[in-house]
Amino acid sequence: MKTNKLVVVGVGHVGSYVLADAMKAGVFGEIGVIDIKENVARGEALDQEQARALTYMNNIKVTHGGYEQTDDADVIIIAAGNSIMPDPDDPTAEPDRASLAKITSQTIRDVMGNITAHTREAIIIVITNPLDTILYIAENEFDYPAGKIFGTGTMLDSARLRNVFANAYDVDPKSVVGYMMGEHGATAFPVLSHLNIQGVPYADLDTYLDRDPQVDLSSPEDIKANVVTAAYDVFNGKGWTNAGVAQSAVTMAKAVVLDERSIYPASTTLRGEYGYDGNVALSMPCVIGINGVEKRIPVALNEWEEAKLHESAAYIQEAMKDAGVKF
Amino acid sequence: MKTNKLVVVGVGHVGSYVLADAMKAGVFGEIGVIDIKENVARGEALDQEQARALTYMNNIKVTHGGYEQTDDADVIIIAAGNSIMPDPDDPTAEPDRASLAKITSQTIRDVMGNITAHTREAIIIVITNPLDTILYIAENEFDYPAGKIFGTGTMLDSARLRNVFANAYDVDPKSVVGYMMGEHGATAFPVLSHLNIQGVPYADLDTYLDRDPQVDLSSPEDIKANVVTAAYDVFNGKGWTNAGVAQSAVTMAKAVVLDERSIYPASTTLRGEYGYDGNVALSMPCVIGINGVEKRIPVALNEWEEAKLHESAAYIQEAMKDAGVKF
Amino acid sequence: MKTNKLVVVGVGHVGSYVLADAMKAGVFGEIGVIDIKENVARGEALDQEQARALTYMNNIKVTHGGYEQTDDADVIIIAAGNSIMPDPDDPTAEPDRASLAKITSQTIRDVMGNITAHTREAIIIVITNPLDTILYIAENEFDYPAGKIFGTGTMLDSARLRNVFANAYDVDPKSVVGYMMGEHGATAFPVLSHLNIQGVPYADLDTYLDRDPQVDLSSPEDIKANVVTAAYDVFNGKGWTNAGVAQSAVTMAKAVVLDERSIYPASTTLRGEYGYDGNVALSMPCVIGINGVEKRIPVALNEWEEAKLHESAAYIQEAMKDAGVKF
Amino acid sequence: MKTNKLVVVGVGHVGSYVLADAMKAGVFGEIGVIDIKENVARGEALDQEQARALTYMNNIKVTHGGYEQTDDADVIIIAAGNSIMPDPDDPTAEPDRASLAKITSQTIRDVMGNITAHTREAIIIVITNPLDTILYIAENEFDYPAGKIFGTGTMLDSARLRNVFANAYDVDPKSVVGYMMGEHGATAFPVLSHLNIQGVPYADLDTYLDRDPQVDLSSPEDIKANVVTAAYDVFNGKGWTNAGVAQSAVTMAKAVVLDERSIYPASTTLRGEYGYDGNVALSMPCVIGINGVEKRIPVALNEWEEAKLHESAAYIQEAMKDAGVKF
Repeated sequence: MKTNKLVVVGVGHVGSYVLADAMKAGVFGEIGVIDIKENVARGEALDQEQARALTYMNNIKVTHGGYEQTDDADVIIIAAGNSIMPDPDDPTAEPDRASLAKITSQTIRDVMGNITAHTREAIIIVITNPLDTILYIAENEFDYPAGKIFGTGTMLDSARLRNVFANAYDVDPKSVVGYMMGEHGATAFPVLSHLNIQGVPYADLDTYLDRDPQVDLSSPEDIKANVVTAAYDVFNGKGWTNAGVAQSAVTMAKAVVLDERSIYPASTTLRGEYGYDGNVALSMPCVIGINGVEKRIPVALNEWEEAKLHESAAYIQEAMKDAGVKF
Repeated sequence: MKTNKLVVVGVGHVGSYVLADAMKAGVFGEIGVIDIKENVARGEALDQEQARALTYMNNIKVTHGGYEQTDDADVIIIAAGNSIMPDPDDPTAEPDRASLAKITSQTIRDVMGNITAHTREAIIIVITNPLDTILYIAENEFDYPAGKIFGTGTMLDSARLRNVFANAYDVDPKSVVGYMMGEHGATAFPVLSHLNIQGVPYADLDTYLDRDPQVDLSSPEDIKANVVTAAYDVFNGKGWTNAGVAQSAVTMAKAVVLDERSIYPASTTLRGEYGYDGNVALSMPCVIGINGVEKRIPVALNEWEEAKLHESAAYIQEAMKDAGVKF
Repeated sequence: MKTNKLVVVGVGHVGSYVLADAMKAGVFGEIGVIDIKENVARGEALDQEQARALTYMNNIKVTHGGYEQTDDADVIIIAAGNSIMPDPDDPTAEPDRASLAKITSQTIRDVMGNITAHTREAIIIVITNPLDTILYIAENEFDYPAGKIFGTGTMLDSARLRNVFANAYDVDPKSVVGYMMGEHGATAFPVLSHLNIQGVPYADLDTYLDRDPQVDLSSPEDIKANVVTAAYDVFNGKGWTNAGVAQSAVTMAKAVVLDERSIYPASTTLRGEYGYDGNVALSMPCVIGINGVEKRIPVALNEWEEAKLHESAAYIQEAMKDAGVKF
Repeated sequence: MKTNKLVVVGVGHVGSYVLADAMKAGVFGEIGVIDIKENVARGEALDQEQARALTYMNNIKVTHGGYEQTDDADVIIIAAGNSIMPDPDDPTAEPDRASLAKITSQTIRDVMGNITAHTREAIIIVITNPLDTILYIAENEFDYPAGKIFGTGTMLDSARLRNVFANAYDVDPKSVVGYMMGEHGATAFPVLSHLNIQGVPYADLDTYLDRDPQVDLSSPEDIKANVVTAAYDVFNGKGWTNAGVAQSAVTMAKAVVLDERSIYPASTTLRGEYGYDGNVALSMPCVIGINGVEKRIPVALNEWEEAKLHESAAYIQEAMKDAGVKF
């Protein structure tokens, strides 16, 4: 036996929260930290190491250094890459995830090259944006074992969707079942055909629950816009988003380590689903267990949803082209 | 400010597990223990008090004594009453929850009389069987404030239902949405019209997930039987059931204290739902928050489910008659 | 990677609580249950499996069956053996742990024979009483790898000691540092020379903290008696003790799985400490990590403590003789 | 009953981590966020609100806005104030906490003025640096009820001290008992006269445990320097420190809400201890419970420690003078 080990690659705004959340996940006895800024990796590792000396904290060994730390890693979470910054000339403009692809596609190649020089055993969870493009590169250019690599995808977008409904009807978001599919980003769409609050379908919600009259949930397009707005509300408020996506990644990592076989939306390269075969990665519900993505669940979509899926896939493919990614 | 306080009434097989689970719930700073066997209350309180001296445990004040402990209680969980014992002549026979009603109806009257002499502020969660009859007595004969008292009801039956599906399809039961309604006991029925695995409805499950071929989930009656069997499997195995129902009660108590507004099936007296008005208590999904049952959600039932609801209600009413309860 | 696996052997009063606590420890993805009463093992496994379907619970695979479950176990906790029952003619008499040795020594031989037919890799934590005799048999007659087997020992007695001081001075028992050494049972003794409340030594406590005037902590013998009384208070109250010892075992198991290297009192066969070499097992502070007992810490004792240690060792050896154990 | 409510004032580097940690503390059902940058408060609140929609997260109501949020707060954590930035001309120079006093003393006056316009009931935990000066202002200029306001003080410095020993001897820092006293900052000093590893005193550690031969712990001055270095290692690595201090504050808040009466070092204005009466605030061990600081524990110091205490007090008083604080 060895204790479960996580390695976090990239500890900027997002990775530092991944590290913080992982310290409290309770399933890892060792966590390694890697960052191109070695002093930042060191600072983050030491800060968390100091925190573990407090009551209630697990005694987790926190290391920092190079990719040799991945030798015996069970899970690797990749949060490397530039933050998405608002346009200084138009700070309210939506940041363009796709335009980052060129820069971060090189980053992910560096990271994956380094990791695969050490291990092909670890389950890899990718957070770096533009997520679906980056995941596609990481999964396909490095021929990483099937299922063992996936992206957080619309895990966070889905949390936002559940929150929109939870706030509108004043119930626990954990009582809401629902997810966004497609791209992690502006073209993600709500799968309202499968959304329900403890079994009460989308269409019947108003019959049983009191909706905040100021919130109109009658239009799929508006709901989609609400979820995207929820992202930009955070972004425009604090300058970045990290708490939600970090918790998403750690929740998935926990499902892996405990072999929970929980169903979460994750981004993987499609293999025949919805008419795509190896030429795009996007999110749909997946069974997450000890082997990573154990199964993809390509749920039936209604007409609007199917159109949105193709729009989203096309957007991702366009972004991949712009970034010079072969598919 | 005062720290949140729970009082557990009755620490037999079930109540002792409620106490143990509550020690780890993290939301209570003080727990009082009451039992007609004062030495048992004392023993349980001391055992848990000693356990709290271990690493990671909250320093919870654990007291034992009389109902004066309920003076400042925020939540009271009632687990008093005789265990349901198998028929010694026919140990495989289903124990008859209803026949216990006469004995335990007096017990609940004693308990509620004692509690209401001290408080009408606390949220009361009833576990004692036959649950729906006992809850009816506690709620109606003592005119306890509406919503502030409810029974664990089919919370446990629903966990069993989700487990049946989770095992059949090899997924996390937390990814299954589904509940039993009606009586807590043999006449509870699955609401398959609302069951889904992350949005995939009951009817479509085989399309997306691999079902254990040895498990047939095509018939509502068989599923109902499976869930009831799950209860008796535990009962016949260990002689009682406690882990599941104790965790159910504590999960609900946590929803109260944190004001989570989670939707859980709970037993309350119906006030017009499904054609019953003040004459029966049974379980349906409810919003559970700081005020107890904040809202009942009488979901639309299909024909089979509606028939089962009325059968279940009739069974409970028959049991109430047998026990001499006025309704 | 495989998920961490615990096997619990014996699910009576103590083992059932070990199972319940382990379900919430957060570090095990799979738990196997073994009991000579196969139906009890099955009932306990099913009850906990059902509980895991509730909110906040990890999706842990709970199995039941034979020792083949230990094949890939990371940790095994042994709680098999008869409960200590009070003397029916004199229910207030102290139950005699040592007299149980003959019966339970055969039980542990059966259990260890079965385990070692399947694995010598797992870390084994023994709870069965009379603990030190049983641990001695398990460790020495089966030549189990050094350090990989140990007993909960005075982990619980030490929690009781900390509780005595915490209650007397009205502080968190986690702020009290202190342990009992020697036998797990009536001859355990407090190591007051090392006891402190956040660094304030035993002798100076009254200078800084307000002691409950009704509690006299001036005499080591009285403190020793208080701790032993604390055990019998539980025992005489509820008929057995389980919450504290179960939590002790699971706390140690967590230290193993996360490789925490926490210092806890544990029972192991002495190898030169205090003048004993292979002829007695008793408790002293140990470093507990991924390899089990990583290090024993034979702290310096004062004259009274040293005398008590030899009395305790002699008592254990006498019990071993009575049970026909060679040493 | 109302659910426990925390308000976090200031969500920069430190406050955002306080918020993140509090979301997982399990004791708060509602958290309010205040920041002079309203959009940052909003962004942080929304990010965490979205995260709570994930599995295992409590459904916590997260609000943002003004000080009206403190009306019904149970605990308020103040993390407002400028970050300590390194000297750009000499980045390795120690940042000067005291020189910040002038600016942040006005900040704390604004914050406390706003809070006390709404409540004098809440327990207030201050993190803002220079901590002891800021706490002195907040406690004394606003005549806040005794005990109800305190600073995190050397809680973090003490965690660092325990970590230094835990790493040197390769044991769980939770097994190390020890604290720094005095100023939170460069003049804090280790109270080695009370430091122990599970009862083994500082002077005897090498007898029982294997020390990393590269770490020399023989000199109090060197240990003091090590701890201060540990802070700057983090600071120089990542540009700020937040994980450790945020967890410190939340650990203390949990001790308050659960009324744990845990002993932690906290900063309060001295009332006769060590010869100071109302003229300086610094850290010593305190009992933390539902009323905040329930008791100060002015432990006996050895000669070196006493000298250091006076040096530290003098340094704080000097800083207060520089900032124009009356005392």
